[in-house]
Amino acid sequence: MKLITFRHNGTVKAGVLTNNDRIIVKDDGPDAAYAVRRLIEGETGVGGWQGGEASLDLSDVELLAPIPDPRRNIFCVGKNYYAHAKEFNDSGFDSSTKEEVPSVPVIFTKATTSVIGPNASILSAMDPTDSVDYECELCFVISKKAHKVTKADCFDYIFGYTILNDVTARYLQQRHNQWFLGKSLDSFAPMGPSIVTIDEIGDITTSTISTTVNGELRQQAKIADLIFDIPTLMETLTATMTLLPGDIIATGTPVGVGLGFKPPKFLKAGDLVSVAVDSIGTLTNPVQ
Amino acid sequence: MKLITFRHNGTVKAGVLTNNDRIIVKDDGPDAAYAVRRLIEGETGVGGWQGGEASLDLSDVELLAPIPDPRRNIFCVGKNYYAHAKEFNDSGFDSSTKEEVPSVPVIFTKATTSVIGPNASILSAMDPTDSVDYECELCFVISKKAHKVTKADCFDYIFGYTILNDVTARYLQQRHNQWFLGKSLDSFAPMGPSIVTIDEIGDITTSTISTTVNGELRQQAKIADLIFDIPTLMETLTATMTLLPGDIIATGTPVGVGLGFKPPKFLKAGDLVSVAVDSIGTLTNPVQ
Repeated sequence: MKLITFRHNGTVKAGVLTNNDRIIVKDDGPDAAYAVRRLIEGETGVGGWQGGEASLDLSDVELLAPIPDPRRNIFCVGKNYYAHAKEFNDSGFDSSTKEEVPSVPVIFTKATTSVIGPNASILSAMDPTDSVDYECELCFVISKKAHKVTKADCFDYIFGYTILNDVTARYLQQRHNQWFLGKSLDSFAPMGPSIVTIDEIGDITTSTISTTVNGELRQQAKIADLIFDIPTLMETLTATMTLLPGDIIATGTPVGVGLGFKPPKFLKAGDLVSVAVDSIGTLTNPVQ
Repeated sequence: MKLITFRHNGTVKAGVLTNNDRIIVKDDGPDAAYAVRRLIEGETGVGGWQGGEASLDLSDVELLAPIPDPRRNIFCVGKNYYAHAKEFNDSGFDSSTKEEVPSVPVIFTKATTSVIGPNASILSAMDPTDSVDYECELCFVISKKAHKVTKADCFDYIFGYTILNDVTARYLQQRHNQWFLGKSLDSFAPMGPSIVTIDEIGDITTSTISTTVNGELRQQAKIADLIFDIPTLMETLTATMTLLPGDIIATGTPVGVGLGFKPPKFLKAGDLVSVAVDSIGTLTNPVQ
């Protein structure tokens, strides 16, 4: 299933996106913005979301992030593709360490208030340092409480996948040393277009992730190229803390971000940025 | 008012703590664990929490964190007292920067799942690197949506204050470069004992913050000694992002943490650690 949250005729609703871009509405109540969260948290059964009659066309709705208001900050992994770790190190923007390729996963978070949906504007004016950069990332979404999960059991704890554009204000990221502030500007976490349940995806590592800016290909890699793969990330995170159903973990971005160019190619108002994972979909946002 | 959440006869309740350690119960319904959050978020009026008859004695209840399940990660400020910034730098544990005293606030977060209440055990076995350290911190709690707040208006956006022990696994903090993981172990965020509303506190900068371990004074400073004061933190955070009612911002810890000693004095099972702010109260937790 592809789970979506959307606005239709001024009302937030949630439902299932079919393969021919039709929508089966599953919740149009006053709390529909939280319907996908409730489904994942097990408050409503996933069974109730199966089947049903498509009543809307995708073109008639405004997609929101599949979880518009996450239950807590988005977990993110830094420098998790080799070539990107090198470009980040070489750029001089990484004030956090002398270590080019991390020996253990580098984990930080993005604020919930940075989340926006597909086609919503990335507000470049939010960044006073004028250094807005894109980062395509595959996210996995936790299905149930997870503590001390082994690599072998990892996929039992994953509900599905989505895509994040981990938009970053590079000079803020650099100046503040810890990355949270430069990653958490309002509108700097485009997410979606849907959450694809894990049963619909075979081997996620064969998927390709990519970014285009105004149609120009900037990033492209296989998920198999992750330095720390999804089972390793699950094991590392749950070794010392508990993950909760609905938690969103972004796995890192490959080489080709704006700061890797000389001079850097930062995003500017009028740009159109698309991040895609071929097994999930494409998430496009204008820069305002 | 001093707002508390507690367990009494096996049931979670919320209420007001009076000056003679009596409790006025304000919510004993099924969602009482979220009552303080709802009050701050404005869903229930603060007026409804004023007055009333005390019916319980503090000694008859088990205090929980005043907000046992925060709406998102706790915001934290690193290296925000001069002498602590120097001790952290000199310790070799700060892998994040070459800058001893930060020129701008260093912001990171702690996971919501690390929160525990007064007297609950800090689980030292959660840290495989055996480097559990204490950090007393004053927190301010946001009262209403805050974006681009000036220093002059800062206190209009503060609901009240509480205390955090920002317990840290030092080797995890160091190894992972970004601090989130070493700060987010389950049970590593003791909070409380209450949230004191801002009207009860005069000038918070005259308050003294301190830590004792097994009765030995380890940290003691004036809130006035913060490098970046509360108005500056509010201005910095809200310059680029929106803070929400119920957000908790921990302001940093003074000199005297365990890593500052040679050899480091880390916490071990059997220790009793108390962090206090004289205008708010004392938060005591055993180490298990």
